[in-house]
Amino acid sequence: MNVIEVDDPRDERLADYVRLRDVNLRRSLEAEHGLFMAEGEKVIRRALRAGFEPRSLLLTRRRLAALANVAESAAAPVYVVDDDVAESVVGFDLHRGALASVRRRPLPAADAVLSGARRVVVLEDIVDHTNVGAIFRSAAGLGIDALLLAPRCADPLYRRSVKVSMGAVFTQPYARLDDWYGGLDDLRGRGFRLLALTPGPGSVPLAGALAATGPADRVALLLGTEGDGLSSRWLDQADAAVRIPMAPGRDVDSFNVTAAAAIACYELVRDAPA
Amino acid sequence: MNVIEVDDPRDERLADYVRLRDVNLRRSLEAEHGLFMAEGEKVIRRALRAGFEPRSLLLTRRRLAALANVAESAAAPVYVVDDDVAESVVGFDLHRGALASVRRRPLPAADAVLSGARRVVVLEDIVDHTNVGAIFRSAAGLGIDALLLAPRCADPLYRRSVKVSMGAVFTQPYARLDDWYGGLDDLRGRGFRLLALTPGPGSVPLAGALAATGPADRVALLLGTEGDGLSSRWLDQADAAVRIPMAPGRDVDSFNVTAAAAIACYELVRDAPA
Ligand SMILES: C[S@@+](CC[C@H](N)C(=O)[O-])C[C@H]1O[C@@H](n2cnc3c(N)ncnc32)[C@H](O)[C@@H]1O
Ligand SMILES: C[S@@+](CC[C@H](N)C(=O)[O-])C[C@H]1O[C@@H](n2cnc3c(N)ncnc32)[C@H](O)[C@@H]1O
Repeated sequence: MNVIEVDDPRDERLADYVRLRDVNLRRSLEAEHGLFMAEGEKVIRRALRAGFEPRSLLLTRRRLAALANVAESAAAPVYVVDDDVAESVVGFDLHRGALASVRRRPLPAADAVLSGARRVVVLEDIVDHTNVGAIFRSAAGLGIDALLLAPRCADPLYRRSVKVSMGAVFTQPYARLDDWYGGLDDLRGRGFRLLALTPGPGSVPLAGALAATGPADRVALLLGTEGDGLSSRWLDQADAAVRIPMAPGRDVDSFNVTAAAAIACYELVRDAPA
Repeated sequence: MNVIEVDDPRDERLADYVRLRDVNLRRSLEAEHGLFMAEGEKVIRRALRAGFEPRSLLLTRRRLAALANVAESAAAPVYVVDDDVAESVVGFDLHRGALASVRRRPLPAADAVLSGARRVVVLEDIVDHTNVGAIFRSAAGLGIDALLLAPRCADPLYRRSVKVSMGAVFTQPYARLDDWYGGLDDLRGRGFRLLALTPGPGSVPLAGALAATGPADRVALLLGTEGDGLSSRWLDQADAAVRIPMAPGRDVDSFNVTAAAAIACYELVRDAPA
């Protein structure tokens, strides 16, 4: 086990871990070095189980024992620091006491994740990392075959997404569309029925729309952004606009996108043979 | 309209709005003065529509026009400030430009929200305000009759919950249990069937458990905390442990509680006549 004690928060070897809450810094740093952060024992273990390779680990002294076998199998340097050193590097109290800087892998092309897929979810411009993480967790937990992300959808491997997903971003197959405008053509070409999830008027209930599909039909659910929902372009491109029916009289006009995604994925897989 | 220009961020009249991100300060300040914060035009309008009374409003100059009619009907002072004054009072860039300090009302007793209720959700110790807000939004949107909160469940009227709920906390009937240990007795006494939502082993699929209830049966869904799930006490007290089935092979062992709540409420109301 390659355990290295580090006392100085400015030590170069901790550079992967600096200022974790500084979104702009992290975006450029992680892109440049092709890394992402996994936080907490459970999530780090899942990253390794999914075959990701750590560049290094950062553990506080009291977490070393719990993670000894991870540290051992990791074949990467394990930096052990005091709590205050950890805090001054990352910028907050690292109460989980364990971080891994993990190498990104090239994302698969859409073709690779779609070829065998039958039930797909497409996220237009979901910008909130919490929502993206939670949607991945629901999709993976329900067995959705693939997620497709519009070009401006937030990064599933951003620290907050990874954390909220509890590592589901490691096992849920996904790809990023490189074109927004024509992004749905490929799905249509493959015979997917495109259902646009929208609480707006003129949509039909989701359950009915799904009941009308055959068991072998390919279905893609499109989900829109937190503020304005799906773009009119994507609504136009869809085969049908579908809604999750909402109770009258509550002065609520839509669900949070995480909730809508969970319900829609559940309904999609509900009666389907796995 | 009672519009008052304020230039000094330390002006006493802005005391309700100080340091919105300081959780401890806000908890005591809001409890002491019996107030909560509504943020953004849409949510403020919903609070007023639901009959809540503002103590005051705080608007940045550029939002005054958009909210003029709210300001007018509010019969409370409307403090208008420059963006930098707002920022130095609340502690961050108030990009929605509109806050209301709203009077709390006494919470109804459990009896008042349960007497006519048939479909109920009970939250054990959900501590995250984002989860509480999103669960309220789903419950209200799906027409759940009442929510019951364990003594340690986070406050639905905390700013972050209100915001994430998009104001659903104003229309969703709820009450707080004052006893955790015996908190479920009352529900059982009223004939509710208590279904404990848990991904753990030994639970039966939720859909099947609900299919076995009659259309007039009273059902309560119990949801557990983000970390450890439901306490063994509440699991013991339930009539059945139920799960939302999860796909194998994804290394995901539970849903985020917001997603689980959305799916469970959806399944509960799915086939039910409104
Ligand atoms: C917060 S909502 C956006 C609301 C937006 N005002 C609209 O009208 O679409 C975010 C996304 O969640 C999904 N969504 C929310 N509530 C829904 C419902 N009742 N039925 C279908 N989709 C819903 C949609 O995909 C939507 O784009
Ligand atoms: C993050 S989970 C807690 C996980 C915890 N380790 C457990 O075993 O309960 C939070 C709550 O969401 C609900 N939940 C999550 N996944 C679920 C599933 N597959 N079936 C039923 N309830 C679930 C449960 O009420 C749980 O207490």
